[in-house]
Amino acid sequence: MGEEVTRILIGVNESSLKGYPNPSISSKGAFEWTINKIVRNNVSAFNLLFLHVHFPDQDGYENMDSRGTHLLEYFVNRCNEIGVPCAAWIKEGDPKEVILNEVKRIRPDLLVVGSRGLGPFQKVLVGTVSEFCWKHAECPVMTIKRNADETPRDPVDD
Amino acid sequence: MGEEVTRILIGVNESSLKGYPNPSISSKGAFEWTINKIVRNNVSAFNLLFLHVHFPDQDGYENMDSRGTHLLEYFVNRCNEIGVPCAAWIKEGDPKEVILNEVKRIRPDLLVVGSRGLGPFQKVLVGTVSEFCWKHAECPVMTIKRNADETPRDPVDD
Repeated sequence: MGEEVTRILIGVNESSLKGYPNPSISSKGAFEWTINKIVRNNVSAFNLLFLHVHFPDQDGYENMDSRGTHLLEYFVNRCNEIGVPCAAWIKEGDPKEVILNEVKRIRPDLLVVGSRGLGPFQKVLVGTVSEFCWKHAECPVMTIKRNADETPRDPVDD
Repeated sequence: MGEEVTRILIGVNESSLKGYPNPSISSKGAFEWTINKIVRNNVSAFNLLFLHVHFPDQDGYENMDSRGTHLLEYFVNRCNEIGVPCAAWIKEGDPKEVILNEVKRIRPDLLVVGSRGLGPFQKVLVGTVSEFCWKHAECPVMTIKRNADETPRDPVDD
């Protein structure tokens, strides 16, 4: 069993906080969960693949290539510290469509996406990307919900 | 990282085939996927917990305790061969409610459930247990869809 490495595609996005681009709380949570609960100390058996999808209309005329690169650097640096092999790239488009296409293209063993979690009044508003991926992706999908105590007071900080 | 073992709860059910109770194709698939892609050779870092939910009205007056025990034996034997620690038990009730309650009770790191997959004409009929768990379970949930080429000709063989 386990001749080839397990390739895990992790969809990551940035926090809406202004200023220097940081990974969102849910992206960080999904990454740390994958390391702590799945990869553990078996680093050479896994390959983490980070995909950031830039939705073109979202941020106007900012230099998003640079922001996305900074975002991915965070995860690549963490992987280097831990010693797990990784790759990272950016695509433009509608996140759920791009993620599904990338799953088709690179055929990971597992797709991990963070989710902001479904509050009682948010069910219809959030979770659309993760639910779409869960239903349609051609590989197993794991959704890591953010802990309730990590919900930022201001949704823009998410 | 990874001081405590990763506890994975796997919901398993039996094939509807008559005769000796066998695990369903999707249960076997979920188990083998977990071993091959997640546990790999890091067997001492994981603990697999098998839950079979017996839905009382489903099979009339048969001796279901015995059937469920045989079903769980399959997975326990496989774990013993592989060398991964495990536990297994049976509960009665509505599968999706029981699985959610067991997640609350034992707090696994991950819930794995097999799914028959969604064929073009089956979307409204199947996937209810896995979708319910995915939406409501208080832990990350992974759904392993059965491969299309494993779909039995007769649904009763599922």
